[in-house]
Amino acid sequence: MTQTSGATARLYLEDLTVGQRFVTGTKTVDEAELKSFATTYDPQPFHLDHEAAKSTMFGGLAASGWHTAAMTMRLIVDGGPPFAWGIIGGGGELSWPKPTRPGDVLQVETEILEITPSRSRPERGTVTVRNDTRNQHGDIVQSFVVKIIVPRRTPGA
Amino acid sequence: MTQTSGATARLYLEDLTVGQRFVTGTKTVDEAELKSFATTYDPQPFHLDHEAAKSTMFGGLAASGWHTAAMTMRLIVDGGPPFAWGIIGGGGELSWPKPTRPGDVLQVETEILEITPSRSRPERGTVTVRNDTRNQHGDIVQSFVVKIIVPRRTPGA
Repeated sequence: MTQTSGATARLYLEDLTVGQRFVTGTKTVDEAELKSFATTYDPQPFHLDHEAAKSTMFGGLAASGWHTAAMTMRLIVDGGPPFAWGIIGGGGELSWPKPTRPGDVLQVETEILEITPSRSRPERGTVTVRNDTRNQHGDIVQSFVVKIIVPRRTPGA
Repeated sequence: MTQTSGATARLYLEDLTVGQRFVTGTKTVDEAELKSFATTYDPQPFHLDHEAAKSTMFGGLAASGWHTAAMTMRLIVDGGPPFAWGIIGGGGELSWPKPTRPGDVLQVETEILEITPSRSRPERGTVTVRNDTRNQHGDIVQSFVVKIIVPRRTPGA
């Protein structure tokens, strides 16, 4: 099942099933924003300047991976699964298989991989999700497998 | 060996040894910047407002994990190991063991974990590093184990 979730319903552990998918809206990568983010947080030539980027491994201007991660997060907060406590992740396995380029149109798909009620805390559980961020060609530019803390609607039920 | 590396020397694969450490400068987490980042990329109550954050799992205002990651990157670009091609990572294992708070003073320590010359590409190799970001109390607020692509000074030597 794939669902778009501008939905206001807040999701609890009982509302989720393994294999469930959620698709966000889209975000067009703005070149000025790409350079501004890089200037502040990742000032390396391949994130700042077309010419300088040509002779690097990226072969052209590319977004900082952390900018891709930040844009992905915003897409999820706005239109990903509306977990009841929000999107609270403690970390996970992150990869950037392809660069994000100016003008790319990003969209994130979240898939529920695993649902584990907590043994020690009856009011909550852990949901492992994979968030794949794709560009307009369908290439994955970021994948993040992360455990999210999600409350139970009925503690210990 | 621990070294601070505002050094201008560019590092090649042959310059590195397992266990080598690098320590960056520091960054004080500014509350206005914390909220501004969250407003743009992670607009959830616990990243935006002291009062709203109190009743959440964070128990108070906390930076977006992606902001911690971005500030960490800037510290490394400015004062981490000056790898010859820059800091080019394809992903890795990311964790945020503790929240980053306004006023925290962050510093990053990079440790070289593994050095693997490429078999197919004699001009380069992969260096696995752990970047630990600590606050002023010595608590780790982020750890990222990542493979960086580093060139050889003498290809295939």
